[in-house]
Amino acid sequence: MKETATLLISCPDRKGILAEITGFIARNGGNIIHADQHIDFQKHIFFMRIEWDLENFKIPKEKIATAFSFIADKFSMKWNLKFNTETPNVAIFVSKYDHCLYDLLYRFKTGEMKGNLKLVISNHRNLENGVKMFGVDFYHFPKTKETKKEVEEKEIELLKKESIDLIILARYMQILTDNFVRQFPNRIINIHHSFLPAFVGARPYHRAYERGVKIIGATSHYVTEELDQGPIIEQDVVRVTHRDTVEDMIRKGRDLEKIVLAKAVRWHLENKILVYDNKTVIFD
Amino acid sequence: MKETATLLISCPDRKGILAEITGFIARNGGNIIHADQHIDFQKHIFFMRIEWDLENFKIPKEKIATAFSFIADKFSMKWNLKFNTETPNVAIFVSKYDHCLYDLLYRFKTGEMKGNLKLVISNHRNLENGVKMFGVDFYHFPKTKETKKEVEEKEIELLKKESIDLIILARYMQILTDNFVRQFPNRIINIHHSFLPAFVGARPYHRAYERGVKIIGATSHYVTEELDQGPIIEQDVVRVTHRDTVEDMIRKGRDLEKIVLAKAVRWHLENKILVYDNKTVIFD
Amino acid sequence: MKETATLLISCPDRKGILAEITGFIARNGGNIIHADQHIDFQKHIFFMRIEWDLENFKIPKEKIATAFSFIADKFSMKWNLKFNTETPNVAIFVSKYDHCLYDLLYRFKTGEMKGNLKLVISNHRNLENGVKMFGVDFYHFPKTKETKKEVEEKEIELLKKESIDLIILARYMQILTDNFVRQFPNRIINIHHSFLPAFVGARPYHRAYERGVKIIGATSHYVTEELDQGPIIEQDVVRVTHRDTVEDMIRKGRDLEKIVLAKAVRWHLENKILVYDNKTVIFD
Amino acid sequence: MKETATLLISCPDRKGILAEITGFIARNGGNIIHADQHIDFQKHIFFMRIEWDLENFKIPKEKIATAFSFIADKFSMKWNLKFNTETPNVAIFVSKYDHCLYDLLYRFKTGEMKGNLKLVISNHRNLENGVKMFGVDFYHFPKTKETKKEVEEKEIELLKKESIDLIILARYMQILTDNFVRQFPNRIINIHHSFLPAFVGARPYHRAYERGVKIIGATSHYVTEELDQGPIIEQDVVRVTHRDTVEDMIRKGRDLEKIVLAKAVRWHLENKILVYDNKTVIFD
Repeated sequence: MKETATLLISCPDRKGILAEITGFIARNGGNIIHADQHIDFQKHIFFMRIEWDLENFKIPKEKIATAFSFIADKFSMKWNLKFNTETPNVAIFVSKYDHCLYDLLYRFKTGEMKGNLKLVISNHRNLENGVKMFGVDFYHFPKTKETKKEVEEKEIELLKKESIDLIILARYMQILTDNFVRQFPNRIINIHHSFLPAFVGARPYHRAYERGVKIIGATSHYVTEELDQGPIIEQDVVRVTHRDTVEDMIRKGRDLEKIVLAKAVRWHLENKILVYDNKTVIFD
Repeated sequence: MKETATLLISCPDRKGILAEITGFIARNGGNIIHADQHIDFQKHIFFMRIEWDLENFKIPKEKIATAFSFIADKFSMKWNLKFNTETPNVAIFVSKYDHCLYDLLYRFKTGEMKGNLKLVISNHRNLENGVKMFGVDFYHFPKTKETKKEVEEKEIELLKKESIDLIILARYMQILTDNFVRQFPNRIINIHHSFLPAFVGARPYHRAYERGVKIIGATSHYVTEELDQGPIIEQDVVRVTHRDTVEDMIRKGRDLEKIVLAKAVRWHLENKILVYDNKTVIFD
Repeated sequence: MKETATLLISCPDRKGILAEITGFIARNGGNIIHADQHIDFQKHIFFMRIEWDLENFKIPKEKIATAFSFIADKFSMKWNLKFNTETPNVAIFVSKYDHCLYDLLYRFKTGEMKGNLKLVISNHRNLENGVKMFGVDFYHFPKTKETKKEVEEKEIELLKKESIDLIILARYMQILTDNFVRQFPNRIINIHHSFLPAFVGARPYHRAYERGVKIIGATSHYVTEELDQGPIIEQDVVRVTHRDTVEDMIRKGRDLEKIVLAKAVRWHLENKILVYDNKTVIFD
Repeated sequence: MKETATLLISCPDRKGILAEITGFIARNGGNIIHADQHIDFQKHIFFMRIEWDLENFKIPKEKIATAFSFIADKFSMKWNLKFNTETPNVAIFVSKYDHCLYDLLYRFKTGEMKGNLKLVISNHRNLENGVKMFGVDFYHFPKTKETKKEVEEKEIELLKKESIDLIILARYMQILTDNFVRQFPNRIINIHHSFLPAFVGARPYHRAYERGVKIIGATSHYVTEELDQGPIIEQDVVRVTHRDTVEDMIRKGRDLEKIVLAKAVRWHLENKILVYDNKTVIFD
C-alpha cells in the first residue's frame, strides 16, 4: 500500500481555492490520487477531499500541516489532515442485540474496516464470550438512572486512556448524556432502526407496523445532543407488505441495520465524511 | 377477455371460511382464477380476494350477490362484489403541476388503466388545453377560503351526476373539507411527495433537504379527514446525495410520484385493495 | 409454537381443486393459517401452499398423508407434506471465502433459520477453527480432478448417514458432478455472484467490471446438472459506478451474496418454494 | 442563468494535471462551479469534468479553446469544450411503441431536458399526430431490407441538414447499419429492454420470463457497430415474481425504460458523460 495524505476542507467559497490547493500539492511533487469538491451554492461554502501519494512529496509528513496552514488561513478553512498509515482506534457500545456487533467484529477481523477495534463496552454481560472469541476486550458497565453520570465518567476515562477515535453505537439501548456526547463531536456513530425523520425514538418497527407503511428503513448518523437529530450519514430501505408482522420487520430490519451502519463506519474510517450544518457531505 | 367476478371479503377469523367460499364457487361451476387470503393474527381478521370465471357459472350475474349473502351473513363478512366488465368512472383533481396528470392521461388513453376517465377538475385554467387534447372534459372550479365549501358542493354534485367511482388527487394543492372526504370513503387517492410519516404537510422536499436525508420518497394513500394520515397504498424511494439541490429533489421526485400514484390507481381499479384499521391489504 | 402441517401441491389446473383441498381440511376440523395459490395460465398448472393448525385436527399426523392421497390422486397432484415440528438437517459446503459461511453460522445459531446445521464440508482447512467455534462439525474433503468422483462418493455417504435434507453451497468453488447433483434434486442451493443469466461461470465481477455495467447482482438457485442454469430462487442488485474497482465490486457483492443466499435458504426451510419447469414459485 | 463553460478531458495520468487546469481557470479570473475528476489506476488514465462561470473570465468565449489547447497538447489530452448557452439539437427515432417517445416529448416541452428537440423519425405513421400535437416535426422513413441503406442515406442527410447533435432511439425496432453508426460516434443513445449483458437482442422480456428471473432491467447505452455492446450509460431494475406474466413484465418494463433512457439523455445533454474503452464515466 502506498502512503497517502488526505485533506478534508471546508471554507467560504471564493475564486481560486482549488488552484491554490492543487498548486500546493503539485509544486511539492505530490501525485493526486483522489480529488472531489462540492459547493453549497445556497450557503456559499466550498468543500473538498483531496488525497495524494506521499512518495516523492518534498515536504516531510510532520511538516505538511504547518506548510498547508498558510493556505488554510488565507481562505479561513476548517480542515484536517490524515495519513492512511495511521489506523484509528475504535470502540463499540452494545446492549443485548448482537447482529450489528457480530457483523462489525467480522468486518474488523477480516480487514474490511481500516480501524483498530480495541474494545467493546456493554451494559449487559450476555455478549462477553462472543466478543472475547474474536480477541477483543470486553468491558461491562451496567447503568441505572442514578449511576449513569458516574458510569459514563468511567467510560470516558477508559476511552481516553485507549485513545479511542471513533465510538460505534451498535444498537446500544442507552441514551448518552450531553456531557458524554460533547466529548466526542462527530465521532459517535449510531444506527437508528427507522427511516429518519420518521419514527424518531423508541420502538420504530412497532410504530411502522401500526402506521401500515410499505417500506421500512434504517439510518446511521452522528450522535448530537438531540435524540436522533444528528447529521445523517447513510440510509437504506426494504419493502414490507401486509403479510409482514412486527417480527418480520425486525428480522428484515436487522440486515438493513448491519449494512447501513457498516457503510457509515467505513466512510468515517476512510475520512470520507465532512459534517456541516447538521448534514454530511460524503466523498465516496 | 373472459368475464369474471371478484369478491373482496373481510371478517372475523374462524375455521372453515375458505372451504365455504371456495365450495360455493365450485358447487356452482365457477372456475377460480385468483385466490389470495390473509389473516391478521393479532386482530383475528380474515381477508380474501377471490376471482372466478363466469363462463358456465350457474348463478346469473345479477343473482350472485343475493346467493353469496347467505354465506356472508353466516360469517359476519364485510364484502363487495365486482365484475371485470364494469368499468369504474374516474375523475382527476389537479392544480398547476402537470407531471402526474399527463402520466395518468397517457395511461388511461392507452388502456393500461382499466377505468373510464370522465373528467378533470382544477382550481386553475393552465392545464385546460392539455386535458382537452386528450379528449377529456375539463372543469374549472377556482376556490378561495371563503368559497371553498360552496364550490365543493358543486364539485360533489358534478361527481355524483357523472357517477364517479374514484377521485385521484394528482398533486391537487387544496385540502378537501371533511364533508367532501366523507362522501367518498376509500375512493379518493392522493399522492404525497414524501415518505410518510416523514414530512407530513407542506413543502416536504424543502424539509428533506434541510434535514439532510439520503433518500427521498413518495406515498400514495386514501384520503381521510386527517391530513396525510390515511391508509397507505404504496411508497417508493430514490437516493439523493449532498450534490442534490431542492430543485434536483423535486425533479427526481416527479418520476417517483408518477409511478407510485399510477400503481395505487391501477390496484384500486383492479379491486386489489382492502382497507381496514387505517391500513391496506394489497392482493397483488 | 403451534404444530402445523404444510402441503405444497402442483397439478393440472381444473375446476374445484381449491374447494376440495380446503374442504378436506375444514371437514376434519383444521384451521387454515396460510393459503396461497397460483395458476400458470400458459401451461395450465395449479400451484398451492396451504398450512393449517393441527390442534383439534381429527386425522392423526401419521395418517394425514394417506388420507390426502385420495384427493391427490383424483387431481394427479405432485405434492409433499411437512410438519413444522420436523427440523430439516443442513450441510454447508465451502471453500476459502467465509463471508456467506459466517453469515449462515450466525443465522442458524440464533435460530433465525429453522434448520439443524449438522456439518460443514470444505476442500480446504482454513475455516476449520471458525466452524468449530460455533460448535458445528467440520469435514475436510480435498479434491483433485482425479479424485473428485471418489471423494464425492464419501461426501454422499456422509450426507446420507447424517440424513441431510438441504445442502448449501456457500461460495463452494468446485463444480459438482452430475452424479452428485442427481442424488439431491432441488435440495442443493448455490449462490452465484452475478445477476444471472449475465456472467454465467467464472470471475463474474471481473467480467462485470470489464463490461462497464452500472449495477451488479447475486443469484441464489437450485443446482442442476447444467452450470448456473438451475431454477432461480432469489436475486438482488447493488449500484456501482466508474469509481468502483473490481475489489470494490467484490466487497459490495459480499453483502449482496449473504442476503440473497440467506433468503433462499430460509424460504426452502419454511417450505415456501415449489419448483417446476426450471422456475420457482415462491409462496412468501 | 449564468453563462458557463464545461471542459470534458481525458489523458494519460501524470503529476500536476489538476493544478495546471485549475491554475489556467484561476489565473484568468474564472470561478469554478463544478470539478470532478477520476483516475483509472489500472489503465493510468485521468478524467475530468470542470465547469466555470464565464462572468469576469478574461478570455473571450471564442478564444478559450485556443488558449486551452496549449495545456491540452502538453498532456496529450482528448477534450471538448461546451457552453451552457449552446443548446444541442436532438432527433428521436421511434417505431410503434410510444411510451418512451411521449415521456421524452413531455420532458423536452417542459424544459427538463436542455435540448432542442427538432424532429422525430419513424418507420411507421401511427405516431405522427401525437408528435405534431407537441409541435415537433415528424418524418416518415419506411424501410425494408432492400431499401435500408438508401433510406438511411436520406436520414443522414436530414440529420446533417438540421445539425442534429444527439439521436435518441426510443424503442426504434430497426438495426442501424455500421455506416450510419459511424457517422454519429457516441451520439446515438439506445434503450435496451433488459439488464445487459443479459438478454442481448430480440424479445428480452419473453426470454426473462422463460428463464424465471426475479428481477428485470433496462439499459441505456451508446450505439456502436456491435448490437447491444456499446458503452453502458445507465441501468435500473424492478422486481418480478412468479405471478408476473410476460405482459406484466412488459408493463413494468415500460416505466423502467422511460426513466433509464431519460437519465442517459439528460446526462448527455449536460455534458456529464465521458466515453473510453467501451465504458462511461458519469460525472453526476
